[in-house]
Amino acid sequence: MSERDQGVKNPSRRALLRGGLAGGGAALMAGLTAGKSIAAGDPAITDIQDWNRYLGDGVDAAPYGMPSEFEADVVRRNVAWLTADTTSSINFTPLHALDGIITPNGVCFERHHGGVAEVDPMQHRLMIHGLVEQPLVFTMQDLMRFPRQNHAYFLECAANSGMEWRGAQLNGCQFTHGMVHNVVYTGVPLRALLEEAGVKTDGKWLLAEGADAAAMTRSIPMEKVLDDCLVAFKMNGEALRPEQGYPVRLVVPGWEGNMWVKWLRRLEVGDKPWHQREETSKYTDLLANGKARRFTWVMDVKSVITSPSPQAPITHGKGRTVVTGLAWSGNGTIKDVDVTLDGGRNWHKARIDGPSLSKSLHRFYYEFDWDGSELFLQSRAIDELGNVQPTKDALRAARGENSIYHNNGIQTWYVRADGVTENVEIS
Amino acid sequence: MSERDQGVKNPSRRALLRGGLAGGGAALMAGLTAGKSIAAGDPAITDIQDWNRYLGDGVDAAPYGMPSEFEADVVRRNVAWLTADTTSSINFTPLHALDGIITPNGVCFERHHGGVAEVDPMQHRLMIHGLVEQPLVFTMQDLMRFPRQNHAYFLECAANSGMEWRGAQLNGCQFTHGMVHNVVYTGVPLRALLEEAGVKTDGKWLLAEGADAAAMTRSIPMEKVLDDCLVAFKMNGEALRPEQGYPVRLVVPGWEGNMWVKWLRRLEVGDKPWHQREETSKYTDLLANGKARRFTWVMDVKSVITSPSPQAPITHGKGRTVVTGLAWSGNGTIKDVDVTLDGGRNWHKARIDGPSLSKSLHRFYYEFDWDGSELFLQSRAIDELGNVQPTKDALRAARGENSIYHNNGIQTWYVRADGVTENVEIS
Repeated sequence: MSERDQGVKNPSRRALLRGGLAGGGAALMAGLTAGKSIAAGDPAITDIQDWNRYLGDGVDAAPYGMPSEFEADVVRRNVAWLTADTTSSINFTPLHALDGIITPNGVCFERHHGGVAEVDPMQHRLMIHGLVEQPLVFTMQDLMRFPRQNHAYFLECAANSGMEWRGAQLNGCQFTHGMVHNVVYTGVPLRALLEEAGVKTDGKWLLAEGADAAAMTRSIPMEKVLDDCLVAFKMNGEALRPEQGYPVRLVVPGWEGNMWVKWLRRLEVGDKPWHQREETSKYTDLLANGKARRFTWVMDVKSVITSPSPQAPITHGKGRTVVTGLAWSGNGTIKDVDVTLDGGRNWHKARIDGPSLSKSLHRFYYEFDWDGSELFLQSRAIDELGNVQPTKDALRAARGENSIYHNNGIQTWYVRADGVTENVEIS
Repeated sequence: MSERDQGVKNPSRRALLRGGLAGGGAALMAGLTAGKSIAAGDPAITDIQDWNRYLGDGVDAAPYGMPSEFEADVVRRNVAWLTADTTSSINFTPLHALDGIITPNGVCFERHHGGVAEVDPMQHRLMIHGLVEQPLVFTMQDLMRFPRQNHAYFLECAANSGMEWRGAQLNGCQFTHGMVHNVVYTGVPLRALLEEAGVKTDGKWLLAEGADAAAMTRSIPMEKVLDDCLVAFKMNGEALRPEQGYPVRLVVPGWEGNMWVKWLRRLEVGDKPWHQREETSKYTDLLANGKARRFTWVMDVKSVITSPSPQAPITHGKGRTVVTGLAWSGNGTIKDVDVTLDGGRNWHKARIDGPSLSKSLHRFYYEFDWDGSELFLQSRAIDELGNVQPTKDALRAARGENSIYHNNGIQTWYVRADGVTENVEIS
């Protein structure tokens, strides 16, 4: 409380009030929380708390606001054993603690291969060259002079849920599914910049390169580039965060996250793909027959229940219970989400709430009366093309046992009678 | 740079690179920014910057992420002379620096009358009493057991632009129009809680009271309560920020901001309004005939150009220019926005981009080729009911000269030939 207390005019009076009220307040509160009904004429229960008895912080306390100290656990978290060093590492969005479809900028998961580049926007340049009529260099200010668009898109790492291929490994949807986030991007269509440069007729691929120490580099077919890719400079209204590519990143809607090149500095037009490291030795999957899947760009239809989940167990006992989760597809919108309480014997249609936007997260809810018996919770999404989220076993049958990427299989949470929830796999 | 530097593995090497490159880099860059075209075969301009030569911060640097240090000016700002003390004060959203329709939680304007209450969510209770069959008390956990909804809504203080009634006072849209923000709320319909309590037939009004030191209190007609009010606990996916009412606030879509009671602790059902301080001596407007407008709940159709604006002047000279701004209406969606460059002689239809959602901010753009002559920029919004944003003169003719609240008049920015932009009023 120390930081906040500094803004309070009279901490001694406040401390006094706290101390003086603690005993009586607790006793009264205990009686009221056991049952929720109160009789008219009960003592005014809203008077027993102290925060209405002192002036709080003024507006100068936080020119840029932060979450409540009571929410200090809602942060991105790392998995220590996952990579050798945090400079080349991953953290995960706290999906279990969020609601709706927007991911706040402060908790959007990170994945970078050379740490967070610290780019001065006044010095940064974006170059377009290769098979173009006129090579061009853009300052950030130049980019802002093109017509802008705004879209909510999910960004999912191809490796999201990758550790679950070999069964239930991680106890929490933050860790199993937290390499996804969803923000509203503001940017200019990549098509507009390429039209300025003039793509030659044999220009069929685009190489995108980042300005970070890893010089992250991917090849993208021109058809996708001209369809819906954005060169984005804002997320959820404000400038991109450094770990999300400040001051400018590529947005490749519905496609795997590492193509969304951050700290974007170079776009080269060519007649064939470049076969860079991150599209050959990485981000490919060895199949049982010895061949590898590669250029697996689209993120397939997927969903996960975010609450209840291992980090968000049921603590209220029997009765009314809200099941909620997220669904998404790189193919467009989500048409339906089904939820099962019994490991797939009976499926119930969930309620999708909030905007249903193409290549964006969708929020779903399923409300039921819990009788206190154990649950095997699963969700199953169906996208606008009719693709149905598969089981993990179906994925293994199709792709063998060597895969890391593109696990969009159905996830199971086991809820015990006491509400404690675990990551399990059932066949 | 100090905070960020702490995370760098080898600052001495990094400092060396910076020092060694500064001279040559600057010279080369000067040549490239003058003209944007480059010849194929030019030296690789992307090699001259140093941030791709050292590893950046790892993921442990910021469990809860923050904006770039280069964006340190994009914060809420106070107007020192506006109120006597910052504990009972206002700050303003930096609209001039944002884009799209989402306001990031960290820069949503604040208005509070007794400072920011510091509420423990485990101790907080919401009581419903008065003309109900069964008075009830809810914990935060109780509230989470009702079916939830998600909606993007603007929240505008009734006093937004209030200082402009007497002509152009403040030089920047952050200060003239920054008492508005727009986030996606997650909450439960107030209707569902009242159905649980059972409203008696003579229950026609609801009193909402906050748990802050000001015990902010407003009367709301039951028709609105049952229509679309929410008891919200999340904004843009995460818990409400303390200054926005953590852990729970009322959402009264399209209606003036001080009815959206923060730190909501008490809801009383009654048969008539309570005539509290904030709906009698405050938040009313004295008309020329000596009567006062009161219960002026709906926020009328309004818009403002956010860039160019006094805090976001044109710095790129003649040629392609993007005009952008926000439009909103408490009556629903925005149908059209018109933009004029010459103080209203010629109007041009702007392009609304991004989701068009009821009682939400809308983002508009108008792109044109600037010839470098002076501009008198205005925007004019029309909502789905056909209401047209009025001039300030029309408002003064209707309401006299004493008003503070509900100024939705057309705003004028004067852009000089050198791009510097000022707040002016023209007749």
